[in-house]
Amino acid sequence: MLKIAIDVMGADNGVAPIVEGVLQALKTRDFTAVIVGDESQITPLIPKNLASRVEILHCTDYIRMEESASSAAKRPESSIFKAIQILKDDEVNALVSPGHSGATMSLATLKIGRIKGVSRPAICTTMPNITDKPSIILDAGANTDCKPEYLVDFAIMGYEYAKNVVGFENPRVGLLSNGEEDNKGNDLTKATFKLLKDFSFFKGNVEGRDIFNGSVDVVVCDGFSGNLVLKASEGVATAISSVLKKEIKSCICSMFGALFLGGVFKRLKKKMDHNEYGGAPLLGVQKVVIISHGSSNARAIECAIYQALHAIESDICTKLTATFAQK
Amino acid sequence: MLKIAIDVMGADNGVAPIVEGVLQALKTRDFTAVIVGDESQITPLIPKNLASRVEILHCTDYIRMEESASSAAKRPESSIFKAIQILKDDEVNALVSPGHSGATMSLATLKIGRIKGVSRPAICTTMPNITDKPSIILDAGANTDCKPEYLVDFAIMGYEYAKNVVGFENPRVGLLSNGEEDNKGNDLTKATFKLLKDFSFFKGNVEGRDIFNGSVDVVVCDGFSGNLVLKASEGVATAISSVLKKEIKSCICSMFGALFLGGVFKRLKKKMDHNEYGGAPLLGVQKVVIISHGSSNARAIECAIYQALHAIESDICTKLTATFAQK
Repeated sequence: MLKIAIDVMGADNGVAPIVEGVLQALKTRDFTAVIVGDESQITPLIPKNLASRVEILHCTDYIRMEESASSAAKRPESSIFKAIQILKDDEVNALVSPGHSGATMSLATLKIGRIKGVSRPAICTTMPNITDKPSIILDAGANTDCKPEYLVDFAIMGYEYAKNVVGFENPRVGLLSNGEEDNKGNDLTKATFKLLKDFSFFKGNVEGRDIFNGSVDVVVCDGFSGNLVLKASEGVATAISSVLKKEIKSCICSMFGALFLGGVFKRLKKKMDHNEYGGAPLLGVQKVVIISHGSSNARAIECAIYQALHAIESDICTKLTATFAQK
Repeated sequence: MLKIAIDVMGADNGVAPIVEGVLQALKTRDFTAVIVGDESQITPLIPKNLASRVEILHCTDYIRMEESASSAAKRPESSIFKAIQILKDDEVNALVSPGHSGATMSLATLKIGRIKGVSRPAICTTMPNITDKPSIILDAGANTDCKPEYLVDFAIMGYEYAKNVVGFENPRVGLLSNGEEDNKGNDLTKATFKLLKDFSFFKGNVEGRDIFNGSVDVVVCDGFSGNLVLKASEGVATAISSVLKKEIKSCICSMFGALFLGGVFKRLKKKMDHNEYGGAPLLGVQKVVIISHGSSNARAIECAIYQALHAIESDICTKLTATFAQK
């Protein structure tokens, strides 16, 4: 049976919502959870009927958000170090971590190792758009300064992930730029464009708005730009929701109307809700590592576990290894 | 009386909406409009009662969107060349252009010239946020590849614009980065951070979401990043609106509820509507140049003219000249 490690330490809201997400996933899918963290906090949360499917790897130390990513390598007693270690030792098949994402990335790269031929691992995130399938964006933050060759690797990894894990038949890949024309871009994307233009999956430059209109399936960018657009997008959605709420509350007539719209707002929220998409795989390392938001709620962790199971079942790491061997 | 030149050629939807915007502004404010473009298209649109306040500078040539920005310098018969020329010759006080923005920028920089001490002019755009005042973002697209010194000049110009034109008492300036902590950023922003940290207006790194929550007043970034976040933000707003409409239409009960919410959606749309903010000044050149969207409607052009009048009245170019003389 598949085993998934979940590092429950170091998330923004403590151990409880993370464990709750694990339990929800256990009720739906068949796997064994290896929960890495403080036993005294975890054990009371596990109901008897699920206890046989939960193992606890006890540790109390963890990397705080304000600590540097590199400090993790010197902390063998920390939860993320232990979790990465059992993944490396094949005791589990995948890892989900809502803890310090820099620490998770650097330890995974250092100890699990990159797939041969991959210049840099990338965080591959999914965003809702107006179509039925999400957009895939990478790098969402692992590499702030990139070379053109890194972006080419991100494009290949994004294509393979979209095809093998998300289920796009012929994923279309775009390069995030400041205009759709071939000659648009900064020095980095112009050089990348030249390297990508012979790949049949490459559909050219795309703009920020294309992430949300479904005009391509995979959007490639450096990790700094990826972080900017994703956080700006979340900011807009939050701002619209906040202004809408304020406006509705300002008039009794709107409040009455909003009653009839309850279902609409709920469905919109679900569609736009980041938690429904779980976490983001760190593509390019030799095993399945899913990085979740520090603020993940139970639903986000549940979805991240489904993502991990799906990534293992689709054998994405083997497929990436084969692709990069031919590169 | 103040004179404003408006280049009505080369916008996405032809001459009519641009002229309509000019006429709307003429009805509200006291100025003379110098409309640069094809007389045979413009004259029929001008009502008799406003004819005395409109001058037409006839020309039919203009820079197409698919042409390169640099071609404008060799086209003295084009509308933007003529418009920039009369601004240079002090025949008008400011220029509003919804045509080829690259051509406008390069001609303005070349012929009008930079303010002494400004390394690069920047497009300074305004975005709605959850507060009553907009956020100011620069550079929104003039410079795709930047050096740290450019970003410092953008910060100074943004501060002065926010204070003198938009009316912030003590504008707070943030540097767009991939995290709020001082050590976050890419090579460019980390080097910029070091140069900015001694300015009293500088509030440190901000994230994409801070553009929309009012935590700072001015957000500084390179023109490539600025373009990405602005277009992604527009994309999210469009996607939410499109999903919302679809959801409402899917059920008669929601349609009924939405009737009572008409005013709410209208006010939200007005708040989020880019047209309400007009255009974006090109800061750092010696005269007032307002760059408008190619897809501007009449309202956007009307607002861009108010922006131009306000920029002249607040004497921003003289203030920037004085500030950079002391730098």
